[in-house]
Amino acid sequence: VVEWFKRRRPRPAAAALRSRDEIVVTKLDLHEFTPGPTVFLAKAAYVQLTLFENLSRVVSIAPTAEAKASIAIAAQASLAKHRSLYGELERLGVDAGAAMEEHRAAADRFQRLTLGADWTEAALTNYLAAGFLDETYAALSAGLLGDLKTRARAILLTDRRDDAMVALLAEAMESNPRLAPRLAMWGRRVLGDTMLLARDALEFGEDHRRSAAIIEPAFTELIAEHTRRMDRLGLAA
Amino acid sequence: VVEWFKRRRPRPAAAALRSRDEIVVTKLDLHEFTPGPTVFLAKAAYVQLTLFENLSRVVSIAPTAEAKASIAIAAQASLAKHRSLYGELERLGVDAGAAMEEHRAAADRFQRLTLGADWTEAALTNYLAAGFLDETYAALSAGLLGDLKTRARAILLTDRRDDAMVALLAEAMESNPRLAPRLAMWGRRVLGDTMLLARDALEFGEDHRRSAAIIEPAFTELIAEHTRRMDRLGLAA
Repeated sequence: VVEWFKRRRPRPAAAALRSRDEIVVTKLDLHEFTPGPTVFLAKAAYVQLTLFENLSRVVSIAPTAEAKASIAIAAQASLAKHRSLYGELERLGVDAGAAMEEHRAAADRFQRLTLGADWTEAALTNYLAAGFLDETYAALSAGLLGDLKTRARAILLTDRRDDAMVALLAEAMESNPRLAPRLAMWGRRVLGDTMLLARDALEFGEDHRRSAAIIEPAFTELIAEHTRRMDRLGLAA
Repeated sequence: VVEWFKRRRPRPAAAALRSRDEIVVTKLDLHEFTPGPTVFLAKAAYVQLTLFENLSRVVSIAPTAEAKASIAIAAQASLAKHRSLYGELERLGVDAGAAMEEHRAAADRFQRLTLGADWTEAALTNYLAAGFLDETYAALSAGLLGDLKTRARAILLTDRRDDAMVALLAEAMESNPRLAPRLAMWGRRVLGDTMLLARDALEFGEDHRRSAAIIEPAFTELIAEHTRRMDRLGLAA
């Protein structure tokens, strides 16, 4: 059992005070847990493809043309990240498709478990998971070498362009008071599944005690960002 | 009854001889049938959004990570067209979401009818319909005014980036001999539904005889391009 996974979530207050530009989490460094570049990029590229697939599904089931258009912006951002990471895989000279195929299991499992009952749950899944996973992979990119480190980090931390989607979710909750409690519950469930997928990105060493000592505080930060995202929607994490 | 819709398809030979760079159809001019800029852009933007939705669905149901990645390239191209056309709507100062909402019926109908039974049919739908619709809207853009004419045309005729998807379809047919006849039939059905959707983009005047005299030869060209796309896959149109 990995201890950090059971860690309590931090209080929302501190996270809410931070402005978007000085998010501590983007300084996180998980370089001791970075797999080799092929595995890193294959998993990262497939995760972004999965986020894109899920957002596309939200586009399809969104009720209005305007909602579709707003969500499409976020879908495009995930797709662009996927394409860039895929391009990095090709630069390495590996068979990018085969590499993703080998490392898709955790993302496929995540996808099955987080479809959601309607477009609001599916949109929330993507908002929460995309942020968490981008930040986890960015923290891991510290362990890559040379230019790839810089490029991968820049790709992963590119703006998700999900403001319009988040505004839509806020509107939906405003016009339906029963929605917020349901989404709050859904958000907690998504956190669990997202953490499992984030964990899949890490390569653990032999010394479990030492690993835990580094990962625990890192995930505390990542979870604080999750809380901040929930706060932004007025949801209790 | 609109006559051109019943027109016979031209022979494939002539179309196959043309190189991609000198496609006659991109010189088509349907300016007499161009609706006002808001209606034109609303329909065009929603059609591209629909093509994106459908391609995203193909990404989701494609069997391998490599296939997903290849189809995602084409999906990205549709999405980029949607975003650009949506941006043009906003430039006009209209409520872009509401405008698309008002004009989505024909595209929604098209989507319902052309889902296909598996990823190969869905991919073929998109390959065939996207080309036909891009070219129809490009021909209609001749009736727009000022810079919008140039920009809309450039957006619509941007490369679809579907080479990798088409290669996948060709591979699938090679490894399963029973697939080609099924896809040939599906392609014919898609042509009918696509023509209905293309027709929805046109605004007809009072003089039906005159309309038919212009539209007939234009659609002959558009259908010749459809035949060229079928040829490219080794399918009889």
